[in-house]
Amino acid sequence: MYLTQGLRRSAARNPNRTALIAHGRNYSWCEFQDRVVRLAGALKNIGLGSGDRVAILAHNGAEYFEFSYGVPWAGGVIVPLNNKLPATDLVYILNHSGTRYLLADRAFEPLIEGFTRQLESVPQVLYFAPGDPESPYERALAAAQPIADQLRGYEDLAGIFYTSGTTGRPKGVMLSHRNLLWNAMSGIINYQLDESTVYLHVTPLFHAAGGSRVFTMVTAGVTNVILPRFDATEVLAAIPRHQVTSMLLVPTMINRLVREPELADHDLGSLRTIAYGASPMPQSVLAEALRKLPGVGFCQAYGMTELSPAATFLEARYHVLDGPDAGRLRSCGRPVWGADVRIEGEDGQPLPDGEVGEIVVRGPMVMQGYWRDPEATARAVRDGWMHTGDAGYRDAEGFFYIVDRIKDIIITGGVNVASVAVEDCIHELDTVAECAVFGIPHPDWVEAVHAVVVPKPGRALTADAVLAHCRARLAGYQCPRSVEIRSQPLPLSGTGKIMKAELRNPHWRDRGA
Amino acid sequence: MYLTQGLRRSAARNPNRTALIAHGRNYSWCEFQDRVVRLAGALKNIGLGSGDRVAILAHNGAEYFEFSYGVPWAGGVIVPLNNKLPATDLVYILNHSGTRYLLADRAFEPLIEGFTRQLESVPQVLYFAPGDPESPYERALAAAQPIADQLRGYEDLAGIFYTSGTTGRPKGVMLSHRNLLWNAMSGIINYQLDESTVYLHVTPLFHAAGGSRVFTMVTAGVTNVILPRFDATEVLAAIPRHQVTSMLLVPTMINRLVREPELADHDLGSLRTIAYGASPMPQSVLAEALRKLPGVGFCQAYGMTELSPAATFLEARYHVLDGPDAGRLRSCGRPVWGADVRIEGEDGQPLPDGEVGEIVVRGPMVMQGYWRDPEATARAVRDGWMHTGDAGYRDAEGFFYIVDRIKDIIITGGVNVASVAVEDCIHELDTVAECAVFGIPHPDWVEAVHAVVVPKPGRALTADAVLAHCRARLAGYQCPRSVEIRSQPLPLSGTGKIMKAELRNPHWRDRGA
Repeated sequence: MYLTQGLRRSAARNPNRTALIAHGRNYSWCEFQDRVVRLAGALKNIGLGSGDRVAILAHNGAEYFEFSYGVPWAGGVIVPLNNKLPATDLVYILNHSGTRYLLADRAFEPLIEGFTRQLESVPQVLYFAPGDPESPYERALAAAQPIADQLRGYEDLAGIFYTSGTTGRPKGVMLSHRNLLWNAMSGIINYQLDESTVYLHVTPLFHAAGGSRVFTMVTAGVTNVILPRFDATEVLAAIPRHQVTSMLLVPTMINRLVREPELADHDLGSLRTIAYGASPMPQSVLAEALRKLPGVGFCQAYGMTELSPAATFLEARYHVLDGPDAGRLRSCGRPVWGADVRIEGEDGQPLPDGEVGEIVVRGPMVMQGYWRDPEATARAVRDGWMHTGDAGYRDAEGFFYIVDRIKDIIITGGVNVASVAVEDCIHELDTVAECAVFGIPHPDWVEAVHAVVVPKPGRALTADAVLAHCRARLAGYQCPRSVEIRSQPLPLSGTGKIMKAELRNPHWRDRGA
Repeated sequence: MYLTQGLRRSAARNPNRTALIAHGRNYSWCEFQDRVVRLAGALKNIGLGSGDRVAILAHNGAEYFEFSYGVPWAGGVIVPLNNKLPATDLVYILNHSGTRYLLADRAFEPLIEGFTRQLESVPQVLYFAPGDPESPYERALAAAQPIADQLRGYEDLAGIFYTSGTTGRPKGVMLSHRNLLWNAMSGIINYQLDESTVYLHVTPLFHAAGGSRVFTMVTAGVTNVILPRFDATEVLAAIPRHQVTSMLLVPTMINRLVREPELADHDLGSLRTIAYGASPMPQSVLAEALRKLPGVGFCQAYGMTELSPAATFLEARYHVLDGPDAGRLRSCGRPVWGADVRIEGEDGQPLPDGEVGEIVVRGPMVMQGYWRDPEATARAVRDGWMHTGDAGYRDAEGFFYIVDRIKDIIITGGVNVASVAVEDCIHELDTVAECAVFGIPHPDWVEAVHAVVVPKPGRALTADAVLAHCRARLAGYQCPRSVEIRSQPLPLSGTGKIMKAELRNPHWRDRGA
């Protein structure tokens, strides 16, 4: 149960087939494995010891794959860094994780140089740059001797994935080889991956959703097409060029993709599966996606970094607008292999079907804990159950529904409003491209429901039209009290989630909240 | 990582669909789970403690499934007993394993009563009988209260599977929850199992090959059709009746099935996959099987109880007689998920491709060890590598080939003859139904190659014809020196393997060998 075994297996089966396509270059499995083994040798050369942390600061690329396998091959622990974070957070993570080695895209050199003085111990940095055979990274690989796999595996720590919590300092989620391999095996089953799959990596690999798929896809032996970041035009060009069959997106990306004017210019016939996660799919977005990509099966995974990351899965057959299976679309699915999932009340006891409580998960995907934070670990993982902080319920057929992030519910006049319900309603309007709903201060109700709405290009939309639509469909207390029409796109996080905090905080700035 | 989680998951997903069909009765997933939880309660009632061993002596049936899940649910360890063993071996196993509880088919009551006095401690026995609602087993279930899952899992011991070694006492192979779950996950991928699969259990469930599939199939949530034992007529009737899609057989069973005169009378159109293992498939048998079952994909698994049990897998696409993939048919395939497989020389060092040595395997499927036999464990598992005792080689494309059981090679005049090579040659004859090749005493060569051959019904076959065929195709030293034509079928073990020892031993009886 070594992550590296998946690479050895795929390389032994198909040494000459394409493993990676990145920055216009193809790497065979044999070549990819050779580079991994050399990177491991290079890390040993600069002193890496068993369990040492190695970080990476980069956009998506082949180096991310080499890092993900070369570090455990050499006996180390990976620490992928969110490349959207400000220097203060990066400094915090590098200090907190005790990282001694850093692989970095040269684009980040000024940033790294700028914060080096603030580090408790200065890591050794190997810079690389796409297409530069003379970078320190490439020179270290060329000079290194291959080394034997140090066989970290089973319950050994594989990586520390720092989550950017909405409050407080980032927390370092410790995932073991077993955690990530279990996720890989259940992913292979759920996504029906095999050696004919061509997978497009376009969500950031520093996040566990994308990063865990490095391991899933190498274990499955698929061909990996890697784009540095999400760009709808680039994605549309890459699909026919590489005959991509499968990819992961977040709903916002799917929305942007299907609204791309040049969508119809590309032959997307190779595409069979689009998985999405991180947030539910508005029905209107799915309707448009199904209409414009009729051959594609959509499926949803729900989880979090602490769950390696998948906990539930909603199959493609439930992504339909008509028929008996249509009602499941609001669900995040049913537990993945090995996951016990239940809904807990505030007293920690399981609740009956239909009642809303906290979603908790037990099984081989639950993290080992938060790095150097036993208190936070003890709060999150109790008796083997990971407490997700998400509110939801289970229906009588065993499907789970996320009502909202517990912390994200708007409490207005003493009643709870799930912002997702309001967002769904606004998305029904044909003129709406994007929207975000959250609470803003109100003198009587503490919070009032507020909506920010972006119209589709060239379409007219007024706040009154949004309000009228909501009033016709929602309960009075759920309706927005105010609507802001915004012309530029909503701000997205590095992982493609709408950054509500950025929209909400200005409203609360003078309230100390 | 609890075996029982797979049952909970399948029961939550499809409570009302059929889980088991046995002895003319259907059990829904909900009903099956209920019976498991009651059996667990019944075992608790009679005193079962954590880690206690519970054995079963029965033919295949629903009770085997209830046993496989009820015992771990109650915190116990399963000990499936080979129902073909003589009393002396059963006594040895029950004493050696320290079994305190026994579930048994009433058909075995006289046998059990007969050896009870020889047991170190007399286990509590719950007898059952197909269709008898008043059996002690059924009454215990009816009276029991459901209990909570005791959550044995991960590295906890799940079962002790006694192997009937050709020499010495049976050895108790200890398999953990992780061992069996890993095998289940890779089986689901390799056999493409899903909830539409209808799987026919016809090989004995006391053997790890069939018994591990109880866990694989329940984890996958397939419909399980259970026949008490292999009978070609019964198998042919069960396939159309239950629309069976998938089953496991040994090559001898496939041979008997496709030679069954009434084969053409049955609509076997539902059948998609036949897996086989335990011994390689003679080319002539495969040719006949492919011709008579054109819609079926054949695939091979190689392994042993100590490997939970699968180590390598040969996909259906290599089970062809023509084209570039045809040459793989003699191979036992490539490593399953998570398995490092290599060929070792006598010095324990890996050998280059093409050279014959011992097949050794490392990974999450390697047993915990032999029960109460640390010396045998240390001999078998060295540095994490399970030493299979099988001789084989790897080709340049990573496919493994079993030359023979190391102990089974015939050494004649100082040269090694792999009996499988001679058997394959004899099987080419259209008139041959079954054959077995082994060494018999010879004054000059120590051993001489001897063949026992069973002709097809109504076909004429002489020893001279067999010899002439071999001489035309084999090297001189490989040719049988003597051929026995036999009219009755070859003796089969409980697991369907040809019992060569039974054929060979009379020749050696007066030689002290």
